[in-house]
Amino acid sequence: MADGYGYDKRAADGKGFMRGIAIDAVIFGFHDRQLKVLLLEYSLAGIFALPGGFIRETENVNDAALRVVRERTGLGDIFLDQFYVFGDYSRFDNRPLKAIMQAGGTGFDEKHWLLQRFITVGYYALVDFTKVVPAPDEESDICRWYDMDEIPTLIQDHQLIIAKALSTLQDGLDKKLIGFNLLPDCFTMADLQAVYETILGKKLQRTVFQRKMLGLGILQRIAKKHTGRAHKAPYLYRFVSQPA
Amino acid sequence: MADGYGYDKRAADGKGFMRGIAIDAVIFGFHDRQLKVLLLEYSLAGIFALPGGFIRETENVNDAALRVVRERTGLGDIFLDQFYVFGDYSRFDNRPLKAIMQAGGTGFDEKHWLLQRFITVGYYALVDFTKVVPAPDEESDICRWYDMDEIPTLIQDHQLIIAKALSTLQDGLDKKLIGFNLLPDCFTMADLQAVYETILGKKLQRTVFQRKMLGLGILQRIAKKHTGRAHKAPYLYRFVSQPA
Repeated sequence: MADGYGYDKRAADGKGFMRGIAIDAVIFGFHDRQLKVLLLEYSLAGIFALPGGFIRETENVNDAALRVVRERTGLGDIFLDQFYVFGDYSRFDNRPLKAIMQAGGTGFDEKHWLLQRFITVGYYALVDFTKVVPAPDEESDICRWYDMDEIPTLIQDHQLIIAKALSTLQDGLDKKLIGFNLLPDCFTMADLQAVYETILGKKLQRTVFQRKMLGLGILQRIAKKHTGRAHKAPYLYRFVSQPA
Repeated sequence: MADGYGYDKRAADGKGFMRGIAIDAVIFGFHDRQLKVLLLEYSLAGIFALPGGFIRETENVNDAALRVVRERTGLGDIFLDQFYVFGDYSRFDNRPLKAIMQAGGTGFDEKHWLLQRFITVGYYALVDFTKVVPAPDEESDICRWYDMDEIPTLIQDHQLIIAKALSTLQDGLDKKLIGFNLLPDCFTMADLQAVYETILGKKLQRTVFQRKMLGLGILQRIAKKHTGRAHKAPYLYRFVSQPA
């Protein structure tokens, strides 16, 4: 967990981990016009934070991010992407971690490795929140989805990290959707528009959206959806393997 | 300098710097259909590398990147942007740094802070190479522009860092050009197309390019360029403050 906040008991003495570098993951969940984000609650200390962790001395940073997400949330096999390094000195504030340590009954001294300055590498992912069930592996932590407009006060700069992840996701969404594998293999233009509207947080004009999408060359029209009323059936599309 | 390769004598004992985290900067230079990249040569050791450095204990990471570029290249006031963290364990290979240290006549032991594993935060910039004159501040280093197709063998993963920086630059160039402030205030469509073609490394079809650019809503047409032959004069454009 980043910055000496999220407190992983197995990393208590810091042996085998890189110093000063953490990972935080913003996992967005999408389903049926809702966008959520996955947060951990350190319930004893009443602190909310992004899932995060540290890098083993011989571990690739990207692998560490996947491991951390799997360990802290129970989510395996998701497409995580780096988006920014949060490295301002002002984010160094170890009081919340001390609160977590104290609430957990663990002793510490001021030289504890987690109480030093950390920079954090931000990762983000987009998943269907009905298909992934968070399961934190430490009983004292609660891990669950929060609506984007109901995010509690988070430790440190985690609110900023979420905002930056969201703008990264929104920017160039066309290229990202395919990688995130969020839609079923075949979908209607209305399905696609719903994804865009939910992630961008605004309504889009149907004909303009359709023209733009078809112009990108990333969609292949495959068949009409069978609805029983053939003349009203919308076309189905799928993503072509790679945009030109 | 990243990964214990670029050797900054003032950081010899590592006092006051964060451990294990470096910065590397890919500074692209553009002018008149040429794209170059700025490299340092450690001439005594015969090693080529990206300009890079370290982060002071109380310094923001982004500020450190600006300082490092200014110190190592003499370039001040450029728009640097983060693009990726290179954090694979496989990049940990301290032999080239030992060569630099030995060539420089400095002693070291295996526990030297620069000989440990580093991850590096990659930054990139795009400048007009006729307007910025590199001036390394350590006499043993040579700092100069290299054509993209004449890049010498670089230490470690610096070739990969350049490739990733280039693809980041190419991707969504529309939004980046304004920030990089590369074109004069007023320019022709042909000027703009030349920038795109040079950075993308391919020819673009004139009418398609023009239609796409005008469709982005980032250009304002201001006047015809005065050439003496009024009916042949191309339009001049400037960027509107922000794309919609």
